[in-house]
Amino acid sequence: MTNPENNNKEYINDKFQRSALQVAEAQARLKPYAALLTHEEVPLTCSSGRYLAQPVYAPHPFPAFDRSSMDGFAVIAADTSAAGELNTVWLEVVEVIPCGAVASREITRGTAARIMTGAQVPGGADTVIMLEATESRIEDGVTYVGIRRPLEAGKHITPCGLELSTGDPVLPEGKLIGAGDIAVLAALGVPDVPVRRRPKVAVFATGSELLEVDEPLAPGKIRNSNSPMLEALIREAGGEPVRLGAIMDDLELARSRVQMALESYDLVLTTGGVSVGDYDIMGDLVREQTGDMLFNKIAMRPGSVTTAAVRGGTLLLALSGNPGACFVGFQLFARPVIGWMQGAAQPFLPEWTARLGAEYKRVDRFTRFVRARLEIREGVLYAYPAAVDESSVTVTIKDSDCLIIIPPDSGQLSAGDKVTVLKLPGEIRG
Amino acid sequence: MTNPENNNKEYINDKFQRSALQVAEAQARLKPYAALLTHEEVPLTCSSGRYLAQPVYAPHPFPAFDRSSMDGFAVIAADTSAAGELNTVWLEVVEVIPCGAVASREITRGTAARIMTGAQVPGGADTVIMLEATESRIEDGVTYVGIRRPLEAGKHITPCGLELSTGDPVLPEGKLIGAGDIAVLAALGVPDVPVRRRPKVAVFATGSELLEVDEPLAPGKIRNSNSPMLEALIREAGGEPVRLGAIMDDLELARSRVQMALESYDLVLTTGGVSVGDYDIMGDLVREQTGDMLFNKIAMRPGSVTTAAVRGGTLLLALSGNPGACFVGFQLFARPVIGWMQGAAQPFLPEWTARLGAEYKRVDRFTRFVRARLEIREGVLYAYPAAVDESSVTVTIKDSDCLIIIPPDSGQLSAGDKVTVLKLPGEIRG
Repeated sequence: MTNPENNNKEYINDKFQRSALQVAEAQARLKPYAALLTHEEVPLTCSSGRYLAQPVYAPHPFPAFDRSSMDGFAVIAADTSAAGELNTVWLEVVEVIPCGAVASREITRGTAARIMTGAQVPGGADTVIMLEATESRIEDGVTYVGIRRPLEAGKHITPCGLELSTGDPVLPEGKLIGAGDIAVLAALGVPDVPVRRRPKVAVFATGSELLEVDEPLAPGKIRNSNSPMLEALIREAGGEPVRLGAIMDDLELARSRVQMALESYDLVLTTGGVSVGDYDIMGDLVREQTGDMLFNKIAMRPGSVTTAAVRGGTLLLALSGNPGACFVGFQLFARPVIGWMQGAAQPFLPEWTARLGAEYKRVDRFTRFVRARLEIREGVLYAYPAAVDESSVTVTIKDSDCLIIIPPDSGQLSAGDKVTVLKLPGEIRG
Repeated sequence: MTNPENNNKEYINDKFQRSALQVAEAQARLKPYAALLTHEEVPLTCSSGRYLAQPVYAPHPFPAFDRSSMDGFAVIAADTSAAGELNTVWLEVVEVIPCGAVASREITRGTAARIMTGAQVPGGADTVIMLEATESRIEDGVTYVGIRRPLEAGKHITPCGLELSTGDPVLPEGKLIGAGDIAVLAALGVPDVPVRRRPKVAVFATGSELLEVDEPLAPGKIRNSNSPMLEALIREAGGEPVRLGAIMDDLELARSRVQMALESYDLVLTTGGVSVGDYDIMGDLVREQTGDMLFNKIAMRPGSVTTAAVRGGTLLLALSGNPGACFVGFQLFARPVIGWMQGAAQPFLPEWTARLGAEYKRVDRFTRFVRARLEIREGVLYAYPAAVDESSVTVTIKDSDCLIIIPPDSGQLSAGDKVTVLKLPGEIRG
């Protein structure tokens, strides 16, 4: 008869000898291996959602010339000093300046130019009077503009360089490019934008229980929802997902497929196979060569089993197979890695303070990242924890726009208590 | 000698006979012409950012079976009622059930099955005990599991249908599909997702002052920044931009090009040429056939000249040429149109209450939409108006994440005052 005590040890004992890291420490261990990718230039119209690889400085003043902000007449302010209700000053209109044209002559005392909104103010003129505030007459084929009040210099002129002087910093390196940035880059004449290459991120799922999304349900099986979710999350983070299918419970085959992926892609993500169990193949794989393991346990729920290793300089990030834990693990670890590779100025989820919308009673020895829904009411931000936030739950992921951070020592929390939340990408629906 | 009074009338008089509409009324006039586009099916992995064309109901319970949430043993709770520290109950382990497998037999009194996380709980068993809480021994080739405490039924089992029962509503029609939705659609076996076709949106710029982004600056000219900005905004709203270049100041040519675009695309946007001025070609174009003009003046700043007409059932939306006004006009009018065409559940920008971060003194007879930057501090949302928010200003667009709505009667506002803001798409940086 065997000794049940001894025999049980291999079950009870965590075969990975795991020691739990704090989240920030785990993120810090990943950073050295999230090397900045190379530059590439993309056409301006394809640059949305990319990260700028170089700071942009103004190559010229912007606006580049004194610009009329009104339809009216460009005049010399001093010419109007005697104007009044009873004393119309008449100036000879010597030119019409449409938008995009340049005056053929300077404005001199006693003359004016008809000028359109956006046109360059002619030399000599120092102010613009609105069309609606003038009269006009034509005499012997010559047009005169009549002005009945004195004008200050500089009215209705947007001066050269109002927005930017030459050399002003415009966009910092690492900025995520959006529509407003594209407008500025266009205005400053940047047809091709230096951005970081998008990281190619391989995705493996593990487990012989997995069905593809187009397969009919079968007893005991579940459809693989993590791989398509991760593809969408990788795209959202700026990466290019490459789906490499499912790894079955064959350690040899898994080793060679993961090895090939590590040699071919910038980052390899796996889901599943990291818990303590007989078929936890990713755990076995990582355990084989402990020299390059970065961590295999994090003081967090869900996703405490999240594991990371480096092989040949490339990161292997093994996320939990539980959909909720896989999602949280991606947001906390894969997302910053994909951001760092692109030089993102803000690789982490934004951290905000919010008020708890409802009580939260669950306590844990690890930090909890609770899926939650944000609402803004009367200028105050409320976070409502999902009713069910088990790591295995899939449905609440879609209804969450933030993760509430519940530290281990926070005790039971009441509605109205202040909490820290991590804002998830996308719009707040509340 | 001509009468200057008479002669001036054509300048002073607004040639469009404009009467200013409120923003909501202008939006309502657009809606009947923003017809819902047809369905199409896209592969699940391409569905991110699309709008669901049909509601999704659960085709089966989810999870689809009683699932073990632990590595351990599936047992009958009643078998453990006599267990205690001094009375180990030993059950015969009759089977090992990996994830994805189905038990070959029922659990009967006195027996147990070794079961992995995620595996289907075998018939007969009604509870799962964690591996770590058990002992084991092997006797005559038979494995026994030892249990030292009584178990309740239902422990560590995620019951069939916990998240969804058959027929439960999962995703509503008009939902913008994100990573969390993709996870649910995958789990429920939806490989092809019914979405609305993306609207094809043509973009014209008007004005002979415009240079392309790759052209060197020339006196009096500016680079066309509105067209690339609009392309990015159209994509952000879910549309497919089609850039049709610049329209020069030739009414005949403009008419035929706009007409062709109206016949070929779902929506036509133009920028510029809508102000009162000699070369305001879009105004002239729209004025030609006033029967189908929806509006040509809105009680808003910037962008009061925003103009809309319908030709052959297709909307022509003429935005201001001023970059700031073009941006605001897009967000308030083009964005909901592009959303309605896709059946978006939330076509408008989200409306929040915030506190003003700094005073705002400018008053106007029209509602102002002031570009601003949001910050969340201690759970409170603050909106900081841009220092310069002239309609012609380009640079502040990139730094804005909301528009503060300043009604005409609001008077001078102080820091801390409550204001309504429209959240712009994208992440809050503050």
